[in-house]
Amino acid sequence: MMKTDSLLIRNVVLDGRKRNLLVQDGRFVCLDAADGAEAERVVDASGCAILPAFYNTHTHAAMTLLRGYADDMPLHKWLQEYVWPFEDKMTSADIRRGSELAVREMIATGTVFFNDMYFDVDETVAAVNAAGIRAAIGVTMMDNHPKVLRQEKSRMVENWRDAGSVSLTVAPHSVYTAGRETLEFAARLARENGKLIHIHLSETQKEVADCVRDFGATPVRYLDSIGLLGPDVIAAHCIHVDREEWDILAERGVTVSHCPCSNMKLGSGRFPYELAIASGVRITLGTDGCSSNNNLDMREEMKFAALLAKLPGDTSLLPADLVFRWATRNGAEAFGYDAGEISEGKLADAVIIDLSNPKMTPCHNLVSNWVYSADSSCIKYVLCNGKIVSDDGR
Amino acid sequence: MMKTDSLLIRNVVLDGRKRNLLVQDGRFVCLDAADGAEAERVVDASGCAILPAFYNTHTHAAMTLLRGYADDMPLHKWLQEYVWPFEDKMTSADIRRGSELAVREMIATGTVFFNDMYFDVDETVAAVNAAGIRAAIGVTMMDNHPKVLRQEKSRMVENWRDAGSVSLTVAPHSVYTAGRETLEFAARLARENGKLIHIHLSETQKEVADCVRDFGATPVRYLDSIGLLGPDVIAAHCIHVDREEWDILAERGVTVSHCPCSNMKLGSGRFPYELAIASGVRITLGTDGCSSNNNLDMREEMKFAALLAKLPGDTSLLPADLVFRWATRNGAEAFGYDAGEISEGKLADAVIIDLSNPKMTPCHNLVSNWVYSADSSCIKYVLCNGKIVSDDGR
Repeated sequence: MMKTDSLLIRNVVLDGRKRNLLVQDGRFVCLDAADGAEAERVVDASGCAILPAFYNTHTHAAMTLLRGYADDMPLHKWLQEYVWPFEDKMTSADIRRGSELAVREMIATGTVFFNDMYFDVDETVAAVNAAGIRAAIGVTMMDNHPKVLRQEKSRMVENWRDAGSVSLTVAPHSVYTAGRETLEFAARLARENGKLIHIHLSETQKEVADCVRDFGATPVRYLDSIGLLGPDVIAAHCIHVDREEWDILAERGVTVSHCPCSNMKLGSGRFPYELAIASGVRITLGTDGCSSNNNLDMREEMKFAALLAKLPGDTSLLPADLVFRWATRNGAEAFGYDAGEISEGKLADAVIIDLSNPKMTPCHNLVSNWVYSADSSCIKYVLCNGKIVSDDGR
Repeated sequence: MMKTDSLLIRNVVLDGRKRNLLVQDGRFVCLDAADGAEAERVVDASGCAILPAFYNTHTHAAMTLLRGYADDMPLHKWLQEYVWPFEDKMTSADIRRGSELAVREMIATGTVFFNDMYFDVDETVAAVNAAGIRAAIGVTMMDNHPKVLRQEKSRMVENWRDAGSVSLTVAPHSVYTAGRETLEFAARLARENGKLIHIHLSETQKEVADCVRDFGATPVRYLDSIGLLGPDVIAAHCIHVDREEWDILAERGVTVSHCPCSNMKLGSGRFPYELAIASGVRITLGTDGCSSNNNLDMREEMKFAALLAKLPGDTSLLPADLVFRWATRNGAEAFGYDAGEISEGKLADAVIIDLSNPKMTPCHNLVSNWVYSADSSCIKYVLCNGKIVSDDGR
């Protein structure tokens, strides 16, 4: 008897051979279904391969509205003369439109989850739930931004019930925008409410120098000294982090979100791949916002990471299968999703890729083609929670 | 009266406003045609913008066959254990298939010209002419490769008549694979026959060190001392080039092909953008072959260049409009094509981009979106010589 909420994906290539995959109630339940198997919906994926979908672990979704608004200028001028004045004028309706646009782009490029930090989070939550993907959305805490009031955020977190496929995080912005009292408040609030913490960390040399000057320690050591670091922390960027600090991050179980395009475009510096990988820290991948990237395309982000790692000369550093894991399974695991692999029992979050696209031809190595050669034109279907959220870009 | 070989592109955005463009005999003849204008073919480009197409100035087209075949390993092992043995087994039919695949990918990603260097060039020439795009194809000269025999190549160049939209170049591979006699022969052959010279130059530190050891000069100075450098030379890579050498390249009028993805993936080093731009040398963009990239997508190449330039901290270096010029007009000019701009009298080589694609939305700055955000899914039509060579990817 045919079950509701079921999907049969016929003739799709998985691990090098053609199979029929059965999805039930959002999970893969059988990877070798019979040709005659039935399901509520059946798609023929002949000529296609299936891979896990992307988990984007650091972005500011509604900043799609600033895509191409101000490029190629020094950070200070960019923020003070362009980004902040633009943001000051953004209404809730703008945040909604920007979030909807972000979700459309993410789905079209194979991303089914994002970890966000911005303003008017209700609007972003609504956009995510309407589209049927997943997100963790941060309530931003900053001491010096007119849009952010800590008390309000406290009430929001305390009253929050994770809505649909969205969970809430506590997001103290950074050590240079949130004072010690705010950071301690954020840590307490997150832990009392069982929420993750999302923070920018050691993104620029200036951030590190100012933190040493003001607090007598580097950002990682400073946050560790006040008890903020732990396995519930997602730290974005982590460029200017020394060997001993990587050990601290590893010991505390922090998850790092690496954002190579943003780091390059803003001249922040090269992520220390050698130290980061050696430390054993869980590394994930993020696009950052569209004002410093300028897209939300995790496929492109994988290629930037894998190539930037190799630039100084070690061509074996960060091979395709490792950066692919950062962009998929590691991100899923950091946010507690039982996903990131195409296997029985896992959540059915996946991309189905057209192998006849010239960029996927020939196919000596599927993951290599996906990381180094593909683009979103290769994507035929995107699945989140067992539902087809994109069918040929629609 | 309607003329043959004419095309009317209606309602396309050019320089910020909607227009009708008339193309006749391969060239733009009117950028403000009347709504009632007629042409042999009419396309409605409502909701789209038009930009110049790409000129890829350094590649090895048939190496599409090696896409994803060997990644993430040291250069020496990669070449000796993987690339060269693979190439040894390639037949003429393989070169044809690899070239056809390359041409398909290039057209799908907005490229209408490429500068090639490989083996069995007749096969690549045939693939280009069948597809209706343009190429300059090099007769490779190496002293140490079994596939290359100098005498044969000499006969080929001397007997050559540029076929269709393909011109022939003389391609001494590099200073480390072609001895002084071969280099001098190549220069003489090219100049006697009015052909361009295509060569790899200063790609790795080892190439520079070996050249100094063997010939007492760096590759640029060595080539200059034997009279090879001139305005007819396209030099690929040029990473390890000092300030004085940039002045030499500028004085001789050499065109440089910058290939950021390949340089990063092979750990060759960062192109010295600061020196190169300051020298006034004509800089163009190339993808290199698919075994070290692993695609032929010039849009992605522009983003890699613009971001790699900024990595050390100068966020104003290589803005979007400059890298876009490298990838389009500079390449066209280097090969003598009166193209690279959408203006009356210029060759009608163009991409027509769907502005409703999320990656192109909003459109504060068209060129910024194209460089930093787009991918080939945004391309609606590709024109070469006034003909539509790709219509929605077909």
